[in-house]
Parts: sequence; structure tokens; C-alpha cells
Amino acid sequence: MTTTYLVTGGAGCIGSELCSALLSRGDRVVALDNLSSGREEHIAELLKNSGFRFLKGDLLDPSALEAALEGVDFVYHLAANSDVKFNADEPDRDLRQNLVATQQLLEAMRRRGLRKLAFSSTSAVYGNSPLQPIPESQACRPISLYGASKLACEAMIAAYSNLFNIQAWVFRFANVVGGKVRKVGRTVISDFIAKLRRDSTRLEILGNGKQAKSYIQTSACVESMLFIVERAQRPYNLYNLGADDVVSVTRIAELVAEAMGLKQVRFDYTGTEAGWPGDVPRFLLDVAALNMLGWRCRQSSEAAITRAIQDILAQD
Amino acid sequence: MTTTYLVTGGAGCIGSELCSALLSRGDRVVALDNLSSGREEHIAELLKNSGFRFLKGDLLDPSALEAALEGVDFVYHLAANSDVKFNADEPDRDLRQNLVATQQLLEAMRRRGLRKLAFSSTSAVYGNSPLQPIPESQACRPISLYGASKLACEAMIAAYSNLFNIQAWVFRFANVVGGKVRKVGRTVISDFIAKLRRDSTRLEILGNGKQAKSYIQTSACVESMLFIVERAQRPYNLYNLGADDVVSVTRIAELVAEAMGLKQVRFDYTGTEAGWPGDVPRFLLDVAALNMLGWRCRQSSEAAITRAIQDILAQD
Repeated sequence: MTTTYLVTGGAGCIGSELCSALLSRGDRVVALDNLSSGREEHIAELLKNSGFRFLKGDLLDPSALEAALEGVDFVYHLAANSDVKFNADEPDRDLRQNLVATQQLLEAMRRRGLRKLAFSSTSAVYGNSPLQPIPESQACRPISLYGASKLACEAMIAAYSNLFNIQAWVFRFANVVGGKVRKVGRTVISDFIAKLRRDSTRLEILGNGKQAKSYIQTSACVESMLFIVERAQRPYNLYNLGADDVVSVTRIAELVAEAMGLKQVRFDYTGTEAGWPGDVPRFLLDVAALNMLGWRCRQSSEAAITRAIQDILAQD
Repeated sequence: MTTTYLVTGGAGCIGSELCSALLSRGDRVVALDNLSSGREEHIAELLKNSGFRFLKGDLLDPSALEAALEGVDFVYHLAANSDVKFNADEPDRDLRQNLVATQQLLEAMRRRGLRKLAFSSTSAVYGNSPLQPIPESQACRPISLYGASKLACEAMIAAYSNLFNIQAWVFRFANVVGGKVRKVGRTVISDFIAKLRRDSTRLEILGNGKQAKSYIQTSACVESMLFIVERAQRPYNLYNLGADDVVSVTRIAELVAEAMGLKQVRFDYTGTEAGWPGDVPRFLLDVAALNMLGWRCRQSSEAAITRAIQDILAQD
């Protein structure tokens, strides 16, 4: 029997690859996306598949949400504001787009008796953890509204899971990179490429360059999500998801310059420990639980970055 | 120099005692309350004090919030929906009254450059913790929307604290009891009293009676909050707050029957492990951090319950 999945944020970088993976194993997929950061080109190929249906709409619009849930068995909830920076012009952005949207979805699922939900959370929920690598059992203290809103979503999901027997899978992603993740301001890679195209002699690096984080490619990210949903069968399943190493921002700058064939780039550091307010400068996720379940990231963080740089440069 | 405090939920059970304590040491107090669960009688005495101002209004009303913050130096944010049970007629109650209200307050504080905030959270953020007693470093997995919304508030406060240098004190309360906490449906004590007044021969007990939790009196609660705010001076200060023991629901039933002079009450148990969906049946907070700071609860949980029963019976 085929399963019908709703993928919210289905035209996004991760969402569109997830749709593709689900379709390729024969399942049916409804993608809901308001195209605020998702792109139609990400799903152009998928539209040829008869099992795929795309709805342009917003989770905060009850009629769009109801239409999207029609006939659905399982929800992958990936739609979110994914910008970590605070915007004083829109201070409730994370609250509305992440938390209120998630509650609307949970309520609609409760009313329909829909009982399967997978959710893309983030390593940003941990904030500056004193313990590294960070296990899932570590207490969270987010330092950005983005991280706070994702932790809030997790908490709502845990409550709905308990109250209404909704089986849930929650993924705390490392930084996700890939060919599609190339909007300027979205990742350090596309920022460096954009800056070096404007001036190939110098590169301004936000922070002291020693920020060191874990990265994972979108394809590995999708592969592990599907693996976890298949294998983890508790009522509420929470997993860190990433490689077991880090790469520094200065190293990423070197890799970008090298890939662009630039040899004499001067690195100018703004000098702070974090790149911007709310940025977690250093984190390494403890992925022992995911490894024990049977999945291990085949690519190191540096390999994921290197591949993403190639893919982004190849497209522009 | 006197400080001017805003106490949101200032006409509530804890809020009104906090207002009283602040006034008695010579500070000025503005109390904001929408009187949805707070009562005017709680603050009737305080209105005679020239340092006290009461505003009937809702945090979700921007003009009420702005009026309340006028001239304020420090905010005690206690206003909240405090009902742990889910209400299908108002599924977004906790989201609006707890989380959206808290974000509105945080935003108003940010715009005004107000930098001191104390917040009443709850032991319900932990959910069914595998580790008992539960230290503050334990990961949270709430099982009620009430607990989820309070954890979400904590997360928002942590983010604002980091982004805008707001010094924050967050208290995870054990169950708070006292003479004012007597609304039926609010605590197990007032429920037992109401039931035994209807029928003094039998008492229906929700759950199996083995639920065992920590209790603290409102007066001890207020005393410890003031102590923590004075002594703990990190940017973000998080403390469990309660006695270091538990008392079972069956024992509370015995204490209530005894205080009412009833000797032959039959206890009928509904039999489930938790009293209702979202109820955390057993918890003991690890209060080592609070003890190390220099404060220890003088009353056991049973002593707090016994005193609260007397105070409630004396008033009716």
C-alpha cells in the first residue's frame, strides 16, 4: 500500500529532495510551500510525476492547510523561517512562522486523527552548550529567537504526541549545506562566494574565523531522516543529525577561495567570537544515538562543505 | 533609591503576595492583571498603599502593556494561563496567554531598553523525567501544552536575554499551594474539599493515588524568588524551586479528610497512573542549586499541604 505524505516547505532545499526521495520509492507526495524561501525550480522536475501534487499556500492559512492534509497519512513538517538573525522590523517572525504555524498544523492533525509527524528542528536549540559533543539529553538554552522557536515547536509536538497519541520524529540538524542552499545570507558558503565575486582580493569574515560547526549535505540529511522514521518506533523519537566532526569558518573561506581559483585572498576578520548576535560559534553534535540506530554520516563536515561549494559554483 | 516593579498577574495567588512583599520593603509596585483568574480581593489591602498601582488589563492589549511599563525598572512576569488540562474549545489558549503574551512583553521591554525580568516557569517543563530528583541541567520533554508553553517562554527569554542584554531570573516552581489557591479545578486540595462537602462518605481520587509531587507554599515561593533575584547575578539565572521531598495524593486525601473531621471516608480511585492527560504523576525537583545559593525550603511538602488545607478551610 502506498503512503501519502504531506511535506510542508516542500519546495525548499531539503523539502524538495525529500519529496523526490519519497516519490522515487513509490509513495505519493503533497508539497505545501508559500515560496517565501522555497523555489518552484526545485520542484519543476517532480511535477512530471503523477504521484506529486504541489500546493502554493501558507500553513497559517487554514484553508490551505486543510486542502494540503486531504488524504494524507504522514506529515513531514519542514516549513519554517530559517533565518537565525533577529529582524527588528518583524520581531514576531519566528513565533508566527515557526511556532504558530506548527500549532495550527498540530491542531489540524488532532482534529483529523492524523497520527504521524516528522519535524525538522535544529542544533540551534542547544545554544552555547557547556558540554561538547552535545547529546540529546543536554538541557537546551537557545540564544536566538530562531533556536527558541524551534525548541518551542519541539515542546508543543512532545505535548501533542503525549496527549493525542501522535507518533513524532524530531531531527536536530547540524548546518545543512548543498547545491540548492545558495541564497545569499543563508549560509556562509554563498556569502563568501558573493563577496569574492565582488572583490577577489579580500574577504571579510564575520567573527574571528574560529567558529567551528558541524555540516551535513541535504542528500545525507534526507537519507538519515527516512532511515530514522523507518527504524525508530517509540512514541516520540528525538535525534541529533550530522557528521561527527566540525570545520572552522576560516577553513571554509580557504576552501571557497581555492575552488574559485583565487590564491591571494586577504582574510579580514570582524573579530568577535560569534559571527552575529544569536550565532552559536562552536558546536559538535553527539550522534551516538543515530549511530546506534544504524546510520552514520559518510561525509565529514569538510567533505560536505567541499561538495556544496562545487555544486553552488557549477550552477551560477 | 526605590525601584519600581511591574508584577504581571499581580492579583493572582502568588502575584499578590509578591506585590505585598515588595511594598513592605519600600519599593513601588504596578500590578497588571486581567482578573481572569486573579481576584480583586487579593489586592484590596494593597490599594491603601501609596506605592501601589493596580491596572486591570491584558498583556495581549498593547496599550495596557505600554501603560503598565511606564516608569518601571524591573518586571516580574507571573501572568499566565495556569490550567494544565487541555481544552479542545480553546486549543491555542496556552500559546496565546503564555507564549504570545510573553513575547509581547519581551518586545516592549526591548524597545524601552528595560533590562531586568523575572519569570515564573514550572516543573511541568520536565515532563516524565527518567532522572529523579530532576536537576536544572536535565533535558525537558513536556507532556502538556501548559508545560510546553512555559518551556517555550523560557526559550524566548533566554534568546532575548542573550540578544538584548536582558538579565533574567527563571523559576521552575514545584506545585504551589496556599490559602489563596482555592479555586476548584486549580489544586488537588480544593478539589478534595469540594467533593467531600458534597459527599462526606466517599472521595473520588483521580489516578491511583500514588502520584507523588513536591509542594511549596506561596509565601515560601515569594521569599525564595526575592532571594534568588538578589543573590544570583548571572545574565540568565535558572532555578528549581521547591521542597526536597514529595507527598502522595492519597496522603493529601487523608490530610484533607482529617482536617475536615471526617473519619470514615472511602477512597475510590479512577486507577490510572496520572490524574488526567498531561498530568506528570511523579516528580521531585533537585534543589541543590538553590540550596548552594543559600536558600532552603523550611517546610516539607506535607507541612505546606497541611498549612494550605487549614488556610483554605478557615476562609470558607
